[in-house]
Amino acid sequence: MPHYDVLCVGNAIVDIIAHCDDEFLKTNGIMKGAMNLIDATRAELLYSRMGDGIEASGGSAGNTAAGVASFGGRAAFFGKVSSDPLGKIYTHDIHARGVAFDTKPLEGEPPTARSLILVTPDGERSMNTYLGACVELGPEDVEADKASGAKITHFEGYLWDTARAKEAIRQTAMLAHAADRKVSMTLSDSFCAERHRDEFLQLIQSGAVDIVFANSHEIKSLYQTTSFEEALAAIRKDCEIAAVTRSEKGSVIVCSNETVIIKATDIKELVDTTGAGDAYAAGFLYGYVTGRNLKDCGDLGSFAAGLVIQQIGPRSWKNLRHEAEQSGLL
Amino acid sequence: MPHYDVLCVGNAIVDIIAHCDDEFLKTNGIMKGAMNLIDATRAELLYSRMGDGIEASGGSAGNTAAGVASFGGRAAFFGKVSSDPLGKIYTHDIHARGVAFDTKPLEGEPPTARSLILVTPDGERSMNTYLGACVELGPEDVEADKASGAKITHFEGYLWDTARAKEAIRQTAMLAHAADRKVSMTLSDSFCAERHRDEFLQLIQSGAVDIVFANSHEIKSLYQTTSFEEALAAIRKDCEIAAVTRSEKGSVIVCSNETVIIKATDIKELVDTTGAGDAYAAGFLYGYVTGRNLKDCGDLGSFAAGLVIQQIGPRSWKNLRHEAEQSGLL
Repeated sequence: MPHYDVLCVGNAIVDIIAHCDDEFLKTNGIMKGAMNLIDATRAELLYSRMGDGIEASGGSAGNTAAGVASFGGRAAFFGKVSSDPLGKIYTHDIHARGVAFDTKPLEGEPPTARSLILVTPDGERSMNTYLGACVELGPEDVEADKASGAKITHFEGYLWDTARAKEAIRQTAMLAHAADRKVSMTLSDSFCAERHRDEFLQLIQSGAVDIVFANSHEIKSLYQTTSFEEALAAIRKDCEIAAVTRSEKGSVIVCSNETVIIKATDIKELVDTTGAGDAYAAGFLYGYVTGRNLKDCGDLGSFAAGLVIQQIGPRSWKNLRHEAEQSGLL
Repeated sequence: MPHYDVLCVGNAIVDIIAHCDDEFLKTNGIMKGAMNLIDATRAELLYSRMGDGIEASGGSAGNTAAGVASFGGRAAFFGKVSSDPLGKIYTHDIHARGVAFDTKPLEGEPPTARSLILVTPDGERSMNTYLGACVELGPEDVEADKASGAKITHFEGYLWDTARAKEAIRQTAMLAHAADRKVSMTLSDSFCAERHRDEFLQLIQSGAVDIVFANSHEIKSLYQTTSFEEALAAIRKDCEIAAVTRSEKGSVIVCSNETVIIKATDIKELVDTTGAGDAYAAGFLYGYVTGRNLKDCGDLGSFAAGLVIQQIGPRSWKNLRHEAEQSGLL
């Protein structure tokens, strides 16, 4: 049985990142800061209107897998690309990070998923995602040996937007728990938490998920409250560990009666927030699987997020292990 | 007749940019700092070995066209992509900058050109270019109205590596001169200047080219001398204007008896030198077509190059007009 630290499951997406002003978001009906789901026609239209971009492999769980590997962890990934040029780029990039990725690519249509990401001058990213081949990820893509052999299985809430992926997740989580492993998830986006509230709550409250990553907007959306404290109290009760990020205010980790406050890393310049939450999860999970305490897990998460928001693109260009060692965190 | 400030002609290339150490270049026989021409098989091999990358539209003359447009100039471009996904990305990006680009894409093989660009920790880029569809650019792609209607026609020396493009260039230059326009070229790369020395010298000495862009290595290679001063004296004699860049030492512009020394712009951090020369040419040419003196042209070139080497990717993310205005250069 292969042994991995973290198995991530998510949408395999290539990001197309461009700058725009706030007016562009308004004119084109794009919800700022959110992940807007779009179809192929709207993807064509928006792309024709947006500025010149750069392309980089992305997708929440894929970014987390790449981050874990960059810290030196053994990571694996399940996700569906098509066997087209973007799919080849995605596969190259995640393999180049040392992540085990063997999901069979889709032959033919739909094409590999892409997210048109618009970064406003404040560094906030607004995503417009055409899921393409991702909708074909299903239970037949669950590699049982990886699901049973990874210390943690981590998946993204975004998968609930694709019909067959949730079945794959339920199966993977069951295999993981049967092998006495942990399961974590990210709520992904406050609108995603709203769309799938009942199922997310059921996953968390039933113990199918042990560790939850979310930001403050997402837990408030999940528990339908405007009070952060109330939402935090609710999630503390519902799961084993919750790590809740709060942008420049850092993060809060709750675990039974324990509460750990983590400061945000000082940054020189906020360039692009894409991938911040994914990098946080990578640092936290790497700390967790190497037996560190919650404070150290949170610090590693905060550190990785701090690096990724100072660059364009969702996966840190810098080697996270090297950088964390230089900073005395590892 | 359409009126353009600058018409650029060059290889239409998508850059795939990754970091590596110097050891990787040695192990893989990549000439550091140079443009290494590779075939499809070697492109596959190198790509499988290199790290995860980002993709961005590139190509020397295309970068210059994008730069001129970013300064607010009217730019056009001739170059050949294939009608594949990378070709669509290339076309989108140059159109999004406002550059007129109407060259008919190639249907079918070979695919759109790509350059595997490896950036070492010192910020130097080493390029490995598979020319793909670029080899199909030919005289039939010359749009006479644009060639006659642009104040300057600018082309890259790299085009001499493709069989039919040089005929397209000769035709474009003739149309430009017949309409009393100027023609400029970049020597592109010292090995390129070596490969095509006789033809480059013939172009410059015959007056087919009025303005030459080069760096110090390239003019030394062209004139087969180790002395910068000697090479500078030779090029001063051979063409109307030569703008010679010298990395952190800035640039020197010679024009008949006049010599203008331009300082390099102060930078905070050298990230990636890709596109520095192309950005310099964009700034210089924008200054030239708007009637500025050589000192101001050089300062605009230096300014644009300084911006592009502080980011990943060959075309400045920032709007050059806005930045130059903020700095009091426009």
